[in-house]
Parts: sequence; structure tokens; C-alpha cells
Amino acid sequence: MKTHFHTRRDFLRTTVLAAASVPFMGAFASSLRAAGPERKLGFALAGLGSFSTHQLAPALQKTRFCRLAGIVTGTPAKAETWSAQYNIPAKSIYTYDTMEQMADNPGIDVVYVVTPNALHAEHTIKAAKAGKHVLCEKPMEVSAGKCQQMIDACKKAGRQLAIGYRLHFEPNNLECVRLAREKVFGDLKIIEAGLGFRIGDPLQWRLNRALAGGGPLMDVGIYALQATRYLTGEEPASVSAITTVTDPVKFKEVEESIAWQVKFPSGIIASCNSTYNFGGMNRYQAFAEKGWFQLSPAFAYGGIQGRRSDGQPINFPPMDQFAAEMDGFAQCILNNQPTRVPGEEGLRDVKIMMAIYEAARTGKAVNLA
Amino acid sequence: MKTHFHTRRDFLRTTVLAAASVPFMGAFASSLRAAGPERKLGFALAGLGSFSTHQLAPALQKTRFCRLAGIVTGTPAKAETWSAQYNIPAKSIYTYDTMEQMADNPGIDVVYVVTPNALHAEHTIKAAKAGKHVLCEKPMEVSAGKCQQMIDACKKAGRQLAIGYRLHFEPNNLECVRLAREKVFGDLKIIEAGLGFRIGDPLQWRLNRALAGGGPLMDVGIYALQATRYLTGEEPASVSAITTVTDPVKFKEVEESIAWQVKFPSGIIASCNSTYNFGGMNRYQAFAEKGWFQLSPAFAYGGIQGRRSDGQPINFPPMDQFAAEMDGFAQCILNNQPTRVPGEEGLRDVKIMMAIYEAARTGKAVNLA
Repeated sequence: MKTHFHTRRDFLRTTVLAAASVPFMGAFASSLRAAGPERKLGFALAGLGSFSTHQLAPALQKTRFCRLAGIVTGTPAKAETWSAQYNIPAKSIYTYDTMEQMADNPGIDVVYVVTPNALHAEHTIKAAKAGKHVLCEKPMEVSAGKCQQMIDACKKAGRQLAIGYRLHFEPNNLECVRLAREKVFGDLKIIEAGLGFRIGDPLQWRLNRALAGGGPLMDVGIYALQATRYLTGEEPASVSAITTVTDPVKFKEVEESIAWQVKFPSGIIASCNSTYNFGGMNRYQAFAEKGWFQLSPAFAYGGIQGRRSDGQPINFPPMDQFAAEMDGFAQCILNNQPTRVPGEEGLRDVKIMMAIYEAARTGKAVNLA
Repeated sequence: MKTHFHTRRDFLRTTVLAAASVPFMGAFASSLRAAGPERKLGFALAGLGSFSTHQLAPALQKTRFCRLAGIVTGTPAKAETWSAQYNIPAKSIYTYDTMEQMADNPGIDVVYVVTPNALHAEHTIKAAKAGKHVLCEKPMEVSAGKCQQMIDACKKAGRQLAIGYRLHFEPNNLECVRLAREKVFGDLKIIEAGLGFRIGDPLQWRLNRALAGGGPLMDVGIYALQATRYLTGEEPASVSAITTVTDPVKFKEVEESIAWQVKFPSGIIASCNSTYNFGGMNRYQAFAEKGWFQLSPAFAYGGIQGRRSDGQPINFPPMDQFAAEMDGFAQCILNNQPTRVPGEEGLRDVKIMMAIYEAARTGKAVNLA
């Protein structure tokens, strides 16, 4: 594991450099520079699956403003393992039934909800009622109504709600946002974006409609959708879509693959794909009047890089996206500033994804304006 | 200019090598090897625009089985220039009004129709009535009805009709067909394909709906559509589409850009784009169960190359696609074999493109099954 000093230097080198070059990261960068004596916010991870185990817990060790302070799990064996590995006191170990008792635990400031999609509202609302800020994984929930409940609960509790859109903290993606917004190659015209992977265990919750709310669109297609939104800075005017299933045994509840198209108000169109049945699709390319830029891979945990039509590479140095995401949220809480990835952003994606599913189901374009 | 010998060796090295590796080129390759004393078929180019000037006439000089024997043009100055440059006798120079008189000219075997889309039927039918075989540029025509008239006219005349789908003779594309059909990476799942360019002269016929029949879809999107069809070996079950115009002055009659999706009967889906408003979009990528392959550029006159997910390149040596296309057709005529790119193939594309436009116009998926 890296030392804190090393980690901090790394973080500054990558995140602040990236931030300095991207206008909408300015506030984050300056607040970071101005930070005085450090106070680390206590994070509790709710849901100790692979993502928490292999990404979030290690990333928390690299953060500047966060520490792993608690866990929420329904599995006693996991509680034991994590408690030992991360030195978590018994009083900071909760089940989903006891997590309201966090209200009495001042060591926990933020609950990071990493449970199946259809449980996000329940766990977010419990955390908010316990007076905690919430960082919730994407997709925010399985319906717009449940997303709204989460927003309302956090608002009522006076706590911040952020969605785990890690690429809003990733410098190569931010550079592409800059290229798009500053019209370095002129107005954007067409975006191609796709993300997919070959799903393993056929019994996992991601293939269960009730828990997942949908298939690859909800899980990874959302990255392609996000890309089209953060590159354009616009909200979809209409969507059309096709879903497909070639393996009806594995994909009996959710789509296997999906292709969707978005028309934005300015006339930009986006063609997107997502799948659970093969790997290798992980890119976007934005075509503008005078050139193009692309990232490939665009959405990976590491190794993101790209090219521009003028021959210049896009290759900011590697950084820990999860550490940046959590530190970003912690900074917002510490400085009482709004997060750049609030619940409202998650709600917008869920509304659009529901429209994409409706378009696929009906064979008709769905207007969102 | 290359010598004939050099050209022949080149042609054999590239085309036959490619053919040998692609099952559906087998007949072509063996007939080529078996060819005895050469007889060159006389080609007349009908339409002496940029494409004939810069691509077809030079390519004819590199063919083994063809020679430039005549021209059809409505512009006397062009007739004079071409006659001088290519030593074309006065009796083999026609206007669109006199081209039926080709019936009396045994030196002309084939008419290559390179006029605006909406004139293809008229010129094809005139050539067929004069007893000539016809090679017609894509798109075949602007409506399915006119395509059918062309097929009928050539059938009635007992002459062959081929459409100028040059990539059916291009080894990198043929290699991708092999990878797909032989399931080297398993079953195909999703194809992304796009081709576009930034159109110049705002007064050209390509922007005139009556002459062009449509915009970039008809002109270059057809390559992406073709790719999805020759890779899958299937015919579309349904299509959906979005068109966009951001420059209503230039694009007042045809779409500026178009995105369309195809669902094939086996469940393969394709996401395609085309545009007249920017360059740099010229690729396809086919994702299969166990890997992917792509060409970028995929549709260019030269420099086509690609990669496979296993790290192997796809880079057959350069060749003249137009020479291969014309020699391929000449071989079919000489050996009385059917062309691999008959009028029926052009008709299928036109029907699909009309369905794509209908889907864009109505916002509803159009079934083609």
C-alpha cells in the first residue's frame, strides 16, 4: 500500500493538473489547494460485494479526505473478514436492519450505497434518516419515482446526495468535455459510444429484473449515455432503441444487448450500444465539424486514453478514479459546496433509460423534451 | 502508369491471394487462373464527372480484361478532352440521347453508368436496349420501382447487370467477411459502422433530392449498410432511424446526418451513422462472442486496414478496387457466370434505405421481414 504522502502527491499531480485544465473543475481544484488541516470523513460501505472489496476499500486507503469507518452487510462472515482487515470496531458494523442506528455514530459521515439497484432507495433513505450524507452507486435506482424519494429524503435530512459517476473525476474524460465544450474541433455533430462486457454467473442479481431494473443499459450502458450527455452538455430531445436476446436462457429477464440513438436539441445525434454478452466494447468517438476525438478504452477503471484527429494523444496519467470521486464528495461536504454529481443527475439518467426501454418495447421514438 | 505485366502480377498477388482465403471468391479465383488467351471487353463510361475522371478511367488502364472503349457525355468539351487523352474514336462517343446507337458498335460490351442516382434507370435501360451489359454505380436508383425496371430491362435484353459495390472485391473487407462467416470469434453480436465526409459545392446534384433520392445515407451510408449485410450474411428484420439537420441552408433537401439501427433475424444488431457535414468517420467494428475485428478506414479507395481483438492486424496489400471490380464483372461476362453484385443486391439496399428514411420520418421502427 502507498504511504499517505505518496498518495497525496499522486493525487495532486493527477487530479489537480487535470482540474486546472478543465473549467468546470476549477472550484474543486482551488478548494483542494486551499484546504487547511485535514479532517477525514468517515465512510461506511453498504454492500460488501466485489466492487466494494476490490475497488472502493482499496481506494479509500488512497484518499486524502476519507477513511473507511464502517460497514453495512447482511453476511456475518463478511463482517468478520472486513473488521479484521480494516480494523473496523464492532460498533461501526451494521446490517441493513440496524443501519438507522448510525445516527448514534458520529464517526460515520457518509454512507456509500453499493447494494443492488432496486435497494438503493431503501438504503439511501435509511442513511439519510440517520443523518448521513449518501454516495450511491449508479444506476441511482430502478424507477424515477424511487430516485425522487431519495432526493427528497436527503433534502429533508439536510444531507448531500451524490451518485457514483466516477468519470466526472477522470482527467481524460474531462479533457474530452473540454474539447467538446470549448469547440476545439467546432460544433459536435455525431457521437458513437458503447460499453459492454460478458457477464459471468447466471444467478447474479444483475440478471434479475426486480433487483437490477434492466440489463446492460442500466449497468454499463449508462456510461455511454452519460458520455453523450457530458460531452454535449445537452439533455436528449428524443430516443429510439432496439434490444436483442440471442441467449434466452441466460437473458430471460433483462436484455442481452441494446442499441439506442439519441437526438439532442442542437441536432447532435448519438449512436450507442451496450451488452452483457461480449467484451471489448469500451469507447466513444465524438465527431465535430472540423475533427474528432475519441477515448478507447473510455470507461475503464484504468488505462483510459485516446486520440484526436490532429494527431495529438489524450493520455493523462493514471489515477485512482474512486479515490478522486470520494475525495471530491468529501470536499463538497467539508466546504458545504454542491457536488457535481447530485441525485438530480442520477434521476435524469434513470428517466432517459426508462424512455430508451419504452422506445425498444414499442418500436417508437420517445420524446423527452 | 504501371506496365500491363506489372499490373497483372499485382492483381494476381492481391486479388487471388485474397480470393483463395475467402470461400465465396473461390469461383472467381479459379476462373481467373483458368483464363486462356485474353479478350478485353470494351467499357463505355456514361457520365464523365470526378469519379470517372479520377477513379474509373485510370483504373481501366490497370485492368486485365477491360479497356476504355467509349464515352457517354452531355458536355462536348469533355468529349473532346477524353477523346484526345484516351484515343477514343468519334464513333464511340455518345450523348445520352444517342446512346441507343451503341447497338451498332460491337467494340462496346459494357456500359458503366456513373450518372446522378435518379438517372441510373434511364441510362441502364438505354444500354440494355442497345444490347450492352451494365455496371451501375451505387445507389442503384432512387426507388425500388426504378431498380426493378433496370433488372427487368437487362433480363429482357439477356445482358448482365452489376452494381458498383467495389468492396466486394477488396481483400481486407473480404477477410472480415471470412472472420464473420467462419465464426473465428464466434457468433457476431453487434456491428458499429459509419461513413461520412464534409460535402463541398452546395450546388452539386448530391444535395438535390430529385437527382440524389436522399442524402448521405444513399451516397455513403450505403457502405455501412452493405457492411452490416455482408458481414452478417443476413437481411434486416427491422430498422429505426434518426436524421438531423444543423445547417438548413446547405441541407434543405436532404438529410445532413443520419443514424440508423438494424435488427437482424439472428438477433445481431447494428448501429450505423452517416453524414455530409464532417470527415473522419470511416470504420466498422464487429463484436462477436469471443472477440472483435475492425477496419479503419473501412471504406476508403485505398489504405484500408484493421485489427482483431487477438492482436493480429488485417492489412492485405493495396490494390486497385475499381480495376478488380471491373475485371470481376468482365470475367463473369466472359465466362457466362453470375456476378456477385447483381441488380437484385442493389434493389435490396434501396428497399432498406427507403425503410430507414420511413423510420426516421415516422419515428417508428419499420419491419422488413
